[in-house]
Amino acid sequence: MLGIDPGLVATGYGCLETGPAGVAIVDFGVIRTAPEDALEVRLAAIHDGVRGLLDKHGPSLLVVEDLYTEYTFPRTAILMGHARGVICLAAAQQGVAVLALAPAEVKRVIAANGAATKAQVQRGVQMMLRLSAAPRPSHVADALSLALTGVSRVIGRL
Amino acid sequence: MLGIDPGLVATGYGCLETGPAGVAIVDFGVIRTAPEDALEVRLAAIHDGVRGLLDKHGPSLLVVEDLYTEYTFPRTAILMGHARGVICLAAAQQGVAVLALAPAEVKRVIAANGAATKAQVQRGVQMMLRLSAAPRPSHVADALSLALTGVSRVIGRL
Repeated sequence: MLGIDPGLVATGYGCLETGPAGVAIVDFGVIRTAPEDALEVRLAAIHDGVRGLLDKHGPSLLVVEDLYTEYTFPRTAILMGHARGVICLAAAQQGVAVLALAPAEVKRVIAANGAATKAQVQRGVQMMLRLSAAPRPSHVADALSLALTGVSRVIGRL
Repeated sequence: MLGIDPGLVATGYGCLETGPAGVAIVDFGVIRTAPEDALEVRLAAIHDGVRGLLDKHGPSLLVVEDLYTEYTFPRTAILMGHARGVICLAAAQQGVAVLALAPAEVKRVIAANGAATKAQVQRGVQMMLRLSAAPRPSHVADALSLALTGVSRVIGRL
């Protein structure tokens, strides 16, 4: 289960595996792009990075956040859309299904509250994955929260 | 010179060639996607379509409209961003540079007025390319207006 938090500057990812001992982290991190590069070069870096993760881990699902109806910064949201587009494309090209989850569902699964704060979600991720600290940066925590919610959807519990 | 008007439902394109006799249309049309398909499948169709155009015509530049700062329909704009993302990616993967043009520059070049209406731009495209009618649908006219403006940037006149 690969969770991805798309961003043109920094795309967080977290890959989980379920086994007899529960859910374990396989890989996590951030794909960063250089602001001085052209948009298309940055998108190619994100696309290559995600293809590499799909090749390496062969996840059954790629989980992203669903689009909202309202964004505070429309231009940033459109650039995020460019990144999300090449990420979804990478999944299609490798035959991996994309699951888009509503933010409220993620908050409910991770923090038992559809209106949980960012900090509450981070603590929830930390507890569920038995980590000594909350995952940093927040892009990784967001990606892991998506992957965890994807797991709960598929196996029905966590 | 390949002009592209990105859209998730319909992506217009127009390919121009400059020769001793002036500017001529090489190809134009619309890449359509099926609304019943998953987002990632639709994005793959757009990406494949643009890669096919780049392979076939080998343009020196791919021209798109620059992002605005304001959009009337943010969700539609973010979905357009997904399409624009996979189009820019296709260019990067084939080593074709992307030129993003401000709408006002396109209107100035095509209709001699940075605040021209859509109809004025369509008539301008028709005249400049010596067409018997305005190009239809409007996605094609928009793509051709971008390609024409790209040509005027490169050769300094039309």
